[in-house]
Amino acid sequence: MAQGEQAPIPAIRRLSLYLRQLEVFEVAGRQTTSSRDLGQALGVSDAQVRKDLGHFGQFGRPGVGYQVLDLIQQVRAILGTDKPTDVVLVGVGNLGRALIAYRGFAKRGFGIVAAFDTDPDKIGCDTPSPDPLVVRPIEDLQEVVSRHDIRVGLLAVPASAGQTVAQLMVAAGIRGILNFAPVLLRVGDDIAVSSVDLSVHLEQLAFQVNGLGS
Amino acid sequence: MAQGEQAPIPAIRRLSLYLRQLEVFEVAGRQTTSSRDLGQALGVSDAQVRKDLGHFGQFGRPGVGYQVLDLIQQVRAILGTDKPTDVVLVGVGNLGRALIAYRGFAKRGFGIVAAFDTDPDKIGCDTPSPDPLVVRPIEDLQEVVSRHDIRVGLLAVPASAGQTVAQLMVAAGIRGILNFAPVLLRVGDDIAVSSVDLSVHLEQLAFQVNGLGS
Repeated sequence: MAQGEQAPIPAIRRLSLYLRQLEVFEVAGRQTTSSRDLGQALGVSDAQVRKDLGHFGQFGRPGVGYQVLDLIQQVRAILGTDKPTDVVLVGVGNLGRALIAYRGFAKRGFGIVAAFDTDPDKIGCDTPSPDPLVVRPIEDLQEVVSRHDIRVGLLAVPASAGQTVAQLMVAAGIRGILNFAPVLLRVGDDIAVSSVDLSVHLEQLAFQVNGLGS
Repeated sequence: MAQGEQAPIPAIRRLSLYLRQLEVFEVAGRQTTSSRDLGQALGVSDAQVRKDLGHFGQFGRPGVGYQVLDLIQQVRAILGTDKPTDVVLVGVGNLGRALIAYRGFAKRGFGIVAAFDTDPDKIGCDTPSPDPLVVRPIEDLQEVVSRHDIRVGLLAVPASAGQTVAQLMVAAGIRGILNFAPVLLRVGDDIAVSSVDLSVHLEQLAFQVNGLGS
């Protein structure tokens, strides 16, 4: 994946969006698509689509376009989601339980294999989900991460605990954090952090609704 | 806000990201910034920053840059988050409860004023949060939406119920849906939908971690 290493982050992000759109096309029964179709569906130019995909190789054929199923498989291979990925969860409050039960992760090949908390009342309890997990003390994190060679963790603790717990995760060997705590994490440059800021989504929606209504 | 109506959706989305970055600068004690600083922090060009902001007016001064606090207030006014916005929640499972307790919304001026569910076991119960809400039957949705002039709703039901409940929300007068159900909603063009696909975040993170590690 030497080419992919030079791809800018926004191009990699759009790759996920192309994949979602391709899956929508697949469900709708479409067999082929074009940079123009993909771009229109996502609000980017066809030149941008070609440029983004061009970072990773040569897909489709000029004048013919892309085979939907084929491109889905190739994009999954680029993203590494063609094989299952184990992740851990830290913080088993309401959000943590929702994340364990969230089917969207499993659909994409992500499995939460262990859940951790600091609350003695939660440790040892089963999480309520189709595949319950026993909540483990945060002290076990390093051993589990190392044994299962886990690189990605979900951080679902309150804002006040976010920074401390993120540091524990990094010390345990986690290299990427999906952060749900509404706090800016300070970690090393070698640690990837993606923060889910739900209020950004709500803000955008409110703006659109106000625009539509006026 | 006549200018804003012509702004493309991606520009409006970046406005939220500029706002977050400006707030980071503010916390760090910075008083001024530039298109270049803002762009670098977010991975876009300074020309893009100027173009995006240009849809909404004239901010900052050439050679001097932007006053951080000033630009924060102006962007909030553009987005409409300088005043509080009431929203409703439909679906009081683990995710719904997490959304009620999520402080990030309140920080941005969004308040969940009513919560609805179809499950008789949940209706009438208080949600556990600093400001508990009584869970109401979905049949009350229209009356509450109309009485409080609510336009935005959070949809946190299982995928299997997503489409049906979204249609109920639209029928009740909701004009924007923040969708957490991992399902593609089919609603009219006059309804704004923003879907939170958590697996996109995880996918991106896994890609970055694999890139960093190899």
